Amino acid sequence: MPASTPLAIVLVSGGLDSATVLSMAQAEGFACIGLSFDYGQRHRWELSCAARVCAAAGVREHRVIVLDPSPLQGSALTGGGEVPKPDDLASIGQEIPDTYVPARNTIFLSMALGLAEGCGSSDLFIGANAVDYSGYPDCRPEFIAAFEALANLATRAGVEGDGIRVHAPLLKLTKAEIIREGTRLGVDYGLTSSCYDPAGDGSPCRVCESCVLRAAGFTSAGLSDPLCGGAVQC
Amino acid sequence: MPASTPLAIVLVSGGLDSATVLSMAQAEGFACIGLSFDYGQRHRWELSCAARVCAAAGVREHRVIVLDPSPLQGSALTGGGEVPKPDDLASIGQEIPDTYVPARNTIFLSMALGLAEGCGSSDLFIGANAVDYSGYPDCRPEFIAAFEALANLATRAGVEGDGIRVHAPLLKLTKAEIIREGTRLGVDYGLTSSCYDPAGDGSPCRVCESCVLRAAGFTSAGLSDPLCGGAVQC
Repeated sequence: MPASTPLAIVLVSGGLDSATVLSMAQAEGFACIGLSFDYGQRHRWELSCAARVCAAAGVREHRVIVLDPSPLQGSALTGGGEVPKPDDLASIGQEIPDTYVPARNTIFLSMALGLAEGCGSSDLFIGANAVDYSGYPDCRPEFIAAFEALANLATRAGVEGDGIRVHAPLLKLTKAEIIREGTRLGVDYGLTSSCYDPAGDGSPCRVCESCVLRAAGFTSAGLSDPLCGGAVQC
Repeated sequence: MPASTPLAIVLVSGGLDSATVLSMAQAEGFACIGLSFDYGQRHRWELSCAARVCAAAGVREHRVIVLDPSPLQGSALTGGGEVPKPDDLASIGQEIPDTYVPARNTIFLSMALGLAEGCGSSDLFIGANAVDYSGYPDCRPEFIAAFEALANLATRAGVEGDGIRVHAPLLKLTKAEIIREGTRLGVDYGLTSSCYDPAGDGSPCRVCESCVLRAAGFTSAGLSDPLCGGAVQC
């Protein structure tokens, strides 16, 4: 790899979106450090998926940071009650759901920012998506723009260097468009997990908002989800 | 304490500035959670000072979060070389020094934000100061304003609630003004530590930029630093 290959920090959750973003960053010519967080999430299964996604992509490094979970409480994903099961697709994203985790993307991007500056990277990638999404405030375009502005005020790289860029290439894509793009880039979605409430063996519940959005995305893309054993719809 | 007492998260490093801010927050009527971070800093002595400052102030809780230190590398304060010893006071703050820690205040405020939202607080306090300071980009007014803007886009409290406020009451004060205000409020600066390179027993080196700024502040305020045994200048 030539010395001039730029380095990016890519947030990799183990889900469908971030796996796609990782491949997009690589397709843009970045060497990538995959960054995942163990924050006491109930869907901790995703961390093993993140490791497999990173290995399959051939990242330079997969870093897992263990976070004190106390700043991430008050969510159904971190122990605060049941994971909601939406009635239908249309009801998803209309309001901030109980699966919202306080300040999660702010904390994740902040850690990515510090890691980037320490290793000479100026590029962060995140799989935030504001079309077929759960309604989280920290997945919206204005949040991403505000974080990038903050990063350029907060850091030596921003003040004295060439600046920090926060890439969120999925922001305005539908789930179907994301799946088509990832499929084109060779992403194996069978390595990923989207479920907020998986069984012990990682099997998706198929009824949480994230499972519903994933299934609708595959259906709309006319592709089969490898987690469904080849069926277009599980 | 009445149920209506508002709750604030106050970043407490164990230093002079944050001890003052804690007292200012309390004087404004906030019940306070003191929040400190163990991030592998070489001046880890400050954590014991933070505990003493919080105990003396009678905070509701002192929370110490252990952070994976990997996003905070590349600084003289986290193992990357010697702590610089400035030639004189005038040379401090002219450029970003080697004691700059990548993304530190962004990470600290992000964790404070998550903690605040999880416990129903809308107010964060930080002892950032941009007058007699080391030149860190994440201590400037524009950084604080950008973080507050981000916080209000990132969170349920910002989008659906009354909003998040980031208080940095020292921003435009000189070190002497900070010390006078803290003294007026009864802060015991003998409990604090400002040194970046203390001895094993916590004794300050008296030559790092932080010690030099502290000494100049006490001198300018016409007050004695209790760490100096009652002398105006150590």
